[in-house]
Amino acid sequence: MASGEVEPDRVYVDYAGFAPVDPRVLAVMRPFLEAGIGNPSARHSLGAEARESLDAARMKVARLCGGAPGGIVFTSGATEANNLAVKGVALRARVPRVIISAVEHISVINPCRDLEKAGGSVCVLPVDGDGRVDPGMLRAAITSDTALVSVAAAAPEIGTVQPLKELGRVTRAADVPFHVDAVGALGRVPLHVESMGIDLLTISGNDLYGPPGSGALWVRPGLRIHPQVLGGGQEGGYRSGTENLPGMVGFGVAAELMRVEGTHQESARLSALRDRLAEGLLEAIPDCRITGARGARLPHHLSLVVRGAKAESVLLDLDLAGIAASSGSACASLTQTTSHVLRAIGCSPEEADGSLCFTLGRWSTASDVDAVLDRLPPIVARVRALAAPLHT
Amino acid sequence: MASGEVEPDRVYVDYAGFAPVDPRVLAVMRPFLEAGIGNPSARHSLGAEARESLDAARMKVARLCGGAPGGIVFTSGATEANNLAVKGVALRARVPRVIISAVEHISVINPCRDLEKAGGSVCVLPVDGDGRVDPGMLRAAITSDTALVSVAAAAPEIGTVQPLKELGRVTRAADVPFHVDAVGALGRVPLHVESMGIDLLTISGNDLYGPPGSGALWVRPGLRIHPQVLGGGQEGGYRSGTENLPGMVGFGVAAELMRVEGTHQESARLSALRDRLAEGLLEAIPDCRITGARGARLPHHLSLVVRGAKAESVLLDLDLAGIAASSGSACASLTQTTSHVLRAIGCSPEEADGSLCFTLGRWSTASDVDAVLDRLPPIVARVRALAAPLHT
Repeated sequence: MASGEVEPDRVYVDYAGFAPVDPRVLAVMRPFLEAGIGNPSARHSLGAEARESLDAARMKVARLCGGAPGGIVFTSGATEANNLAVKGVALRARVPRVIISAVEHISVINPCRDLEKAGGSVCVLPVDGDGRVDPGMLRAAITSDTALVSVAAAAPEIGTVQPLKELGRVTRAADVPFHVDAVGALGRVPLHVESMGIDLLTISGNDLYGPPGSGALWVRPGLRIHPQVLGGGQEGGYRSGTENLPGMVGFGVAAELMRVEGTHQESARLSALRDRLAEGLLEAIPDCRITGARGARLPHHLSLVVRGAKAESVLLDLDLAGIAASSGSACASLTQTTSHVLRAIGCSPEEADGSLCFTLGRWSTASDVDAVLDRLPPIVARVRALAAPLHT
Repeated sequence: MASGEVEPDRVYVDYAGFAPVDPRVLAVMRPFLEAGIGNPSARHSLGAEARESLDAARMKVARLCGGAPGGIVFTSGATEANNLAVKGVALRARVPRVIISAVEHISVINPCRDLEKAGGSVCVLPVDGDGRVDPGMLRAAITSDTALVSVAAAAPEIGTVQPLKELGRVTRAADVPFHVDAVGALGRVPLHVESMGIDLLTISGNDLYGPPGSGALWVRPGLRIHPQVLGGGQEGGYRSGTENLPGMVGFGVAAELMRVEGTHQESARLSALRDRLAEGLLEAIPDCRITGARGARLPHHLSLVVRGAKAESVLLDLDLAGIAASSGSACASLTQTTSHVLRAIGCSPEEADGSLCFTLGRWSTASDVDAVLDRLPPIVARVRALAAPLHT
């Protein structure tokens, strides 16, 4: 099977859960995996070559987010980067007081809970019905001892893009570090750390069609954070451990491709596909509505709640019909609780039970959309019929 | 260039710094990189397939260390695993009091320093002239509030293998969790968590000729630790973040190969090569001695101090002569300080300046040894001659 492609009979619409690695990324990674013997900290010339490759990757990732290359701290992924941002900033503060939104990813929420146990405090900003944070509300919530504001660029599960520029203006005026989890958004919607006043940015390599196990936290030069993984002092002392050089090189190429192809071409193509999928489903499935914003939304992202049809059953039937989709966050699926994101935007537990999420990507085609439009409505009807006594 | 091989004109004797990935490991990883779209937490069948592959890898790594597969917590490498062991255990204790040896890796030492800043305490056990920890001394150091004992299976930089079984007997009798950093040792010397009373074991994937960016902490089932990377609750809640599936699958294959080929065949072959290298160098280079134990020593490891020849200059000349070697730990090279390991075994700063480390591996040949025997002695003589006024 060629890389980047899913088996022909399978339709993959769970790109947010996991993205195939771009074959062009793999082509660049291959020599590093096959012949790479460089530890970037080694003092011989193989080490120097490794160091150069690592710094070239750093440059490419920095360029995508519009920040200084020296700010890139490579990590094993976005979850680690979110942990480093939240704990790294809060643990250096006199009072670890953090403000987050009610629709953050669990890898921001759980480090915050950890801080609370350690005596810190966390203020959770409510969101509107689309999942949007209000800049005025943020302004009112900031106190003199606020150590960090953390808001994801796009709300997980529902794809609503936050008014980052306005939020950044508020944090900048209050002189509070602003952390943005850019997963899903970077390369897909305008996102630029300088013009938006962002001080820390979480990036996932796989989200950009790079290899799993790669990620970064961009940290504004001058902002000091407390490292979470300690040791040999790699990554400017912010993240120790021998670097995953093939992974970071692949991440760099993925970032470069996303910068060149992502925001304009790819986003336009995917949002057109997504809009057709949305309209078709809303028409074919009664009692179903879109969650999250209609306009300010990730271009590849569609989320719905389908009343009276448990997502679990629908996804199982979809899977049997060759379609891999999701009910929202794969990470949240382990905890088996009602999504905090859906609760925050006012969904009832019954509605949340019927939450479906379709995310498109670089290899999504019109026929993928056709397949979902073709197979999902009868599946929902069947699941609803089986659950009829409960669906009043 | 075929994988696992270094360019023909280059001699690589820095396997401890970084190991080439075994081509058989890459062959198994390839389909996961090229067509893998599975997030092990996803609810569709691609997710289930990913989960199965991950658990198969877990089984293979567990088998190599002789522990229950459920104890394997995959991490991004050994440094992260060491951090998780030290902070994970200590932060759950009423008093975070930790005992380590004076010859631990920096990724154990630095988390301990972090604990001290947070009010914990760290007791550093001295070692003998070979770098060995005395079990009686450990017994005397353990107090009723000791939360953890952490001793590497083999001392970094000098390759001395610790008397793990005896140390494990002491910690077991005192009912204190015993953490062992197995980097360098696992698969090369007998190491078995059950028969040695080890409660936490750090494993590096690359150290076993697996991909960089892969590692694990084996945690004895029943022992609770505080997770360091929080989020979706992957890896039994001990390490969140979407799994690097290709990396972990490769790590599993590498562990399996090491179990089948490592301890007996490969170790015998490498220790014979190493012994020939050691004897030849001691004979050809005056005023030079081996550091670390002669007998209880990693089979692929040779470390020396060469009086009056700065390692920095020697390594540069070796590099120009096509030989990639090291002065000890690549991790420590970033900090540019005199090695704490060499200080602990009584080396003077001058001696430590002349520290060289040669580590062999799966693709090392007799001609690699010949090349070092041929090229190193004249280089040392030249460096000494240039430094003559300083070498009295």
